[in-house]
Amino acid sequence: MSDALNRLAAVVGEKHAIRDAAGMDGYMREWRQIWTGRSPLVLRPGSTEDVSRILAIANETRTPIVPQAGNTGLCGGQIPTDAGNEVVLSLERMTRILDVDAADNTITVEAGAVLKSVQEAADAVDRFFPLSLASEGSCRIGGNLSTNAGGLNVIAYGNTRDLCLGLEVVLADGRVWNGLKRLRKDNTGYDLRDLFIGAEGTLGVITAAVLKLFPKPRTVETAFIAVPSPQAAVDLLSLARELSGNRVVGFELIADIALQFAIRHAGVRHPLAEASPWYVLAELADPVPGAMMAIFESAMARGLVTDAALAQSDAQRSAFWAARELISESQKSEGGSIKHDVSVPVSKVPQFLAAADEAVSRFLPGSRFVSFGHLGDGNIHYNISQPVGMDKEAFLGMWNEVNDVVFEVVGRFNGSISAEHGIGRLKAYRMPEIKSAVELDMMRGLKRLLDPNNILNPGRVLPE
Amino acid sequence: MSDALNRLAAVVGEKHAIRDAAGMDGYMREWRQIWTGRSPLVLRPGSTEDVSRILAIANETRTPIVPQAGNTGLCGGQIPTDAGNEVVLSLERMTRILDVDAADNTITVEAGAVLKSVQEAADAVDRFFPLSLASEGSCRIGGNLSTNAGGLNVIAYGNTRDLCLGLEVVLADGRVWNGLKRLRKDNTGYDLRDLFIGAEGTLGVITAAVLKLFPKPRTVETAFIAVPSPQAAVDLLSLARELSGNRVVGFELIADIALQFAIRHAGVRHPLAEASPWYVLAELADPVPGAMMAIFESAMARGLVTDAALAQSDAQRSAFWAARELISESQKSEGGSIKHDVSVPVSKVPQFLAAADEAVSRFLPGSRFVSFGHLGDGNIHYNISQPVGMDKEAFLGMWNEVNDVVFEVVGRFNGSISAEHGIGRLKAYRMPEIKSAVELDMMRGLKRLLDPNNILNPGRVLPE
Repeated sequence: MSDALNRLAAVVGEKHAIRDAAGMDGYMREWRQIWTGRSPLVLRPGSTEDVSRILAIANETRTPIVPQAGNTGLCGGQIPTDAGNEVVLSLERMTRILDVDAADNTITVEAGAVLKSVQEAADAVDRFFPLSLASEGSCRIGGNLSTNAGGLNVIAYGNTRDLCLGLEVVLADGRVWNGLKRLRKDNTGYDLRDLFIGAEGTLGVITAAVLKLFPKPRTVETAFIAVPSPQAAVDLLSLARELSGNRVVGFELIADIALQFAIRHAGVRHPLAEASPWYVLAELADPVPGAMMAIFESAMARGLVTDAALAQSDAQRSAFWAARELISESQKSEGGSIKHDVSVPVSKVPQFLAAADEAVSRFLPGSRFVSFGHLGDGNIHYNISQPVGMDKEAFLGMWNEVNDVVFEVVGRFNGSISAEHGIGRLKAYRMPEIKSAVELDMMRGLKRLLDPNNILNPGRVLPE
Repeated sequence: MSDALNRLAAVVGEKHAIRDAAGMDGYMREWRQIWTGRSPLVLRPGSTEDVSRILAIANETRTPIVPQAGNTGLCGGQIPTDAGNEVVLSLERMTRILDVDAADNTITVEAGAVLKSVQEAADAVDRFFPLSLASEGSCRIGGNLSTNAGGLNVIAYGNTRDLCLGLEVVLADGRVWNGLKRLRKDNTGYDLRDLFIGAEGTLGVITAAVLKLFPKPRTVETAFIAVPSPQAAVDLLSLARELSGNRVVGFELIADIALQFAIRHAGVRHPLAEASPWYVLAELADPVPGAMMAIFESAMARGLVTDAALAQSDAQRSAFWAARELISESQKSEGGSIKHDVSVPVSKVPQFLAAADEAVSRFLPGSRFVSFGHLGDGNIHYNISQPVGMDKEAFLGMWNEVNDVVFEVVGRFNGSISAEHGIGRLKAYRMPEIKSAVELDMMRGLKRLLDPNNILNPGRVLPE
């Protein structure tokens, strides 16, 4: 193994081949410290050619490689195991913006470009790159693509997959596939691009991408809205889409307890005068003037909305969003949380919430349901705070059992147990539960085809 | 072979197993009569289970299968060869709309559903299915998906790929993959859906799909606009997107000669008072009121537009679109045409047109460039009418050579030689020219993985 490591290190030079524990430390853990691991070597290539040479050697020497971009993933896919034999391939030096074309509405970037820098490069030519996540200041495009990241604007612009026109990928054997097309239409053969997007680095290493840009929204209207039920929120979404000319760019559902936590622990001010069982944070971009008021009036007449506040300033808009964004953090002060990133068809969200609450309550009476999320995508962050007074460790010890209860309900609605975070190491073992034999068989076939020696992020996505 | 045919026929029953020449005739040719072939048997399955049993037998007996939906494809992918050994699998009996969910904005259909029937089913629940093609009255969703059809609304809604959430596919060995998810987000494993979309029936047979619906546009503004050059049209597109709040849903470029042909041979009235070298047919959906006038004013001030007419009625809007849609037909009266369905990055369209006109003129002086197409997608129907007075057959005899000249220019701009029509039998032989060795190798690997006995539409997409 040592000879292989020396050959790998020689590709990038000693300066960019890290072997000491202190230097490697930041690559061995993610910020929450939930996933940690060990590695003999961290490689920091500076070019696609470097990556190509690294993978060729790794393939020849059967050295497992763990690609890592911004190291913000929540499922452990980017962290080596404790076995200590996996080499980390960090894309963090490959941060160049290669091209921005405003007329074309495209931007071409290296995989290590930080999401925020891509947003800013678009902004500089009066364009909008819509991918937006809590971690945008540190996550990198290669990771966003490899996990098909979602985020706040999916309802209007789609997931990362939908924002990509072309890719450059280094295959397991070191060959480079240049698929950096800037075309809106290209029907010449199989869609290889989408095979690598969302594959979490198990089929190839993405080194560059062509991404779509959009005109910047010129006006944005944001409202915090009290609704009596999730079903009212679903109906309100249909109404808002129709009355705004399909200009809904954000539609977040928030349970009252989630807002209460943010008020209690994160200094958030209640945006409305009175509490409501549920809220919606809705945003329209470039609507017909007065669209939001028309939506309120129509919705109130139908009993879908009981109160609403329209943001009158950027500061107020930010305050509304802060209420949404501080929920997850504020749950910490309420003891243990068991979290789920699930999706069901949008129209099934109300039934899913009722059924899941009932099933979990039966399993663990007193569970508190801090449900919130991207209703427009059917994507609920179904977070459960521990019963008041229960021992935190005892609650967290039930993690997998509670997951089982929730995922069973997800299955009833033909939903997804990982809507936007991916599989990684966290959920690979569940793949045989949630996928049919024929689907698993195709996935294993693809893995064998593109990575016959199983050197690329082994054990992630597909269990060993 | 005869035993295999009898077993295949038995799956659907004699009523739906056609063996006589007269009965098979309609399946052996497409409407233009360019692609014709022979077959021993046409099968008309009524269910996914029928398709499954058919493919299991075909795989066991090594019987080549040609899937056929609406039989409107332009590249011959759905027509058997003259060898006479390929069995046609027609999806035309599988036309059911399985589910329409307005709250969910999804529709679930069998692969044989005619596009128009899907549009109508959406309309019946006050929703919009945006896929729209000239052949929408007869093309079927299975074919649209298998060829990743484009059409008129791609600029706003994407290609067929972008309109699909889930698929049901019968694999070459008869196993059924049920991927009929209705989810907006699902990051659990590899993207198998997009592997089958655009694969032209060579990797599996699509039997059903979940498609996205949208709110119906409430107002539409349509304009016929004179522009001095393709570059002005590209600049106008940027301006129109910005000033309309990204509500451009159609943006067609039309060369003056194309409009002249439609006027001369198809009874079209010139929408403007004076001729212009180029025109744009632009459409906005649900724009901010007055957006089109604001665009005109700003564009005229910049010299991007010299004249424009805004449709004042549905009849006028239809007349504008008729001018665009009758171009291809009206070319027939001008002698032979050699046609290309190409794309380049949107910003490169002006350079592409100049370079291609120059290269073709050098090859064949007097060639007439009847260029038009979806400028917003960088997709130009680069059609060449023969020089005046030249012998038609002599001109058409140069088809492949003219293609060579045009495709060389497409390659210079990193474009696509088939933007929306696909590869089929027409262009399979060109794949080694336009694809890198590594891309071809991946494609061949995927074909071997999913169709090891090469029974599914052999020779289409990938040359034998």
